[in-house]
Amino acid sequence: MLVGGIHFFENDDPYLIAKKALRVNLSDLASMGAEPLGYLLGIALPNKNFDPDKWLSPFVDGLKDDQERYQLKLWGGDTVSTTGPVTVSVTAIGQTENTVCLSRSGAKIGDNIYVSGTLGDAAAGLVVLREKMDQEKFEYLIKRYHLPEPRIKLGRALLEIATSMLDISDGLLGDISHICRHSNIGAEIESKKIPVSSALGNLLATKADYSSLTWSGGDDYELLFTTSPSNDHVIKKLSGQLGIKLTKIGKITEGHKVTILDGEGVEIKFNKRGFSHF
Amino acid sequence: MLVGGIHFFENDDPYLIAKKALRVNLSDLASMGAEPLGYLLGIALPNKNFDPDKWLSPFVDGLKDDQERYQLKLWGGDTVSTTGPVTVSVTAIGQTENTVCLSRSGAKIGDNIYVSGTLGDAAAGLVVLREKMDQEKFEYLIKRYHLPEPRIKLGRALLEIATSMLDISDGLLGDISHICRHSNIGAEIESKKIPVSSALGNLLATKADYSSLTWSGGDDYELLFTTSPSNDHVIKKLSGQLGIKLTKIGKITEGHKVTILDGEGVEIKFNKRGFSHF
Repeated sequence: MLVGGIHFFENDDPYLIAKKALRVNLSDLASMGAEPLGYLLGIALPNKNFDPDKWLSPFVDGLKDDQERYQLKLWGGDTVSTTGPVTVSVTAIGQTENTVCLSRSGAKIGDNIYVSGTLGDAAAGLVVLREKMDQEKFEYLIKRYHLPEPRIKLGRALLEIATSMLDISDGLLGDISHICRHSNIGAEIESKKIPVSSALGNLLATKADYSSLTWSGGDDYELLFTTSPSNDHVIKKLSGQLGIKLTKIGKITEGHKVTILDGEGVEIKFNKRGFSHF
Repeated sequence: MLVGGIHFFENDDPYLIAKKALRVNLSDLASMGAEPLGYLLGIALPNKNFDPDKWLSPFVDGLKDDQERYQLKLWGGDTVSTTGPVTVSVTAIGQTENTVCLSRSGAKIGDNIYVSGTLGDAAAGLVVLREKMDQEKFEYLIKRYHLPEPRIKLGRALLEIATSMLDISDGLLGDISHICRHSNIGAEIESKKIPVSSALGNLLATKADYSSLTWSGGDDYELLFTTSPSNDHVIKKLSGQLGIKLTKIGKITEGHKVTILDGEGVEIKFNKRGFSHF
């Protein structure tokens, strides 16, 4: 459920809002190893000071483009009016090839922890927008915030290999904590191994205080998964086949604690668990 | 999608809001001849001047009671905050015994038009609430407004018999127009045959100007269906078996017009198509 003023700026392009609303749901399917089939859409539109046609036209274009891109259909839904902000509720339906799907609860002690892509970009893109920084210079980060790329093929390929998986929506730290809680284990992550894009690197070169975005920033919708060390070679091969960076960032440990180590192997203390949207 | 201040009063009991949000969706499944299996729930809760725990506790009780009543499970969902009113989005999933389900598009010329239960009660209940009439006296009507009864068993039984079906959410006139448009036919309805509850009869005895609620009032969630005249005896038998009043109110005609006849067989002119919520 995406709410104007909470999950997106009320003056954001409806074309991008439509795509993001769909994609965050497709990412959820991807994290279970499922392939999307169709979706249902509820929209509440403001009944005052709002031009529904003007807003819906690009919104529908965004849906149309992503329906084609991801080969899925709109199965139904509802459109209502509200005294509040634009509210978009998407329910995406998918299926796995197996009768089972992946969950957060299967991680085992000794498993390696992997992430796809790079982390912190979306949160940094939001910072760029909120602090009115140079949008042209940080276009890549803004795009990562507006347009997550659900890792559907990767999710399906990992169905038989990963022991647990989710998509990073709250931030690496918050989400690995979810896996630990559901799997009843701990985790140790080496912060220097967390994959960072060159665009985020450029931002951090001048604003080092945002470096925590790599583990606390949400909205990346990259896959976080655990797998036996015996699969390291399979993961490497898969990365090459799909053209998606897959990085080993830590391992599953005994206990229940999530530890993040700095470049010298010293534990980083933190008080912000995960990521809050605005 | 139900929005506070639009589809329910903001001070309505959350226990009843939960039930109504579920039931209007179950009614949609019933109208397709489907049996409910599970549902997904999105809730947006106000981030100011609102006590989420106080609101959610009876809301969850309402969900729990109706999950038991209708034997269905909560499969997932999302809870977010909003600067607007409480917004509840339910997606119910069901299945039919056949590979097909019933739609609005199969009505044939000569078919009889039936409705289940009585019409106008829910809209009259809303009038009672809005005009602060005697709530005790009209308790039945208020209950019909707050707690629709999805006709799941009836819907399933009609799967093989009806040519078209929907659940009356916009009002008889608006909804029969949907069937006519989708089936490319017309309809003639005898207003004197529209089934009226004794509770609504009591209200109309003093407020005759509300008599149009029977064909314009929404929110009844009774089933409206068409079927061949050869099935009249099957419908009668079904009504007895299920203990649900099923009333023949008119027939499908050539053309594209919906006609409502008064007690003398004279066409009633109207300018209000269907029913607007508040």
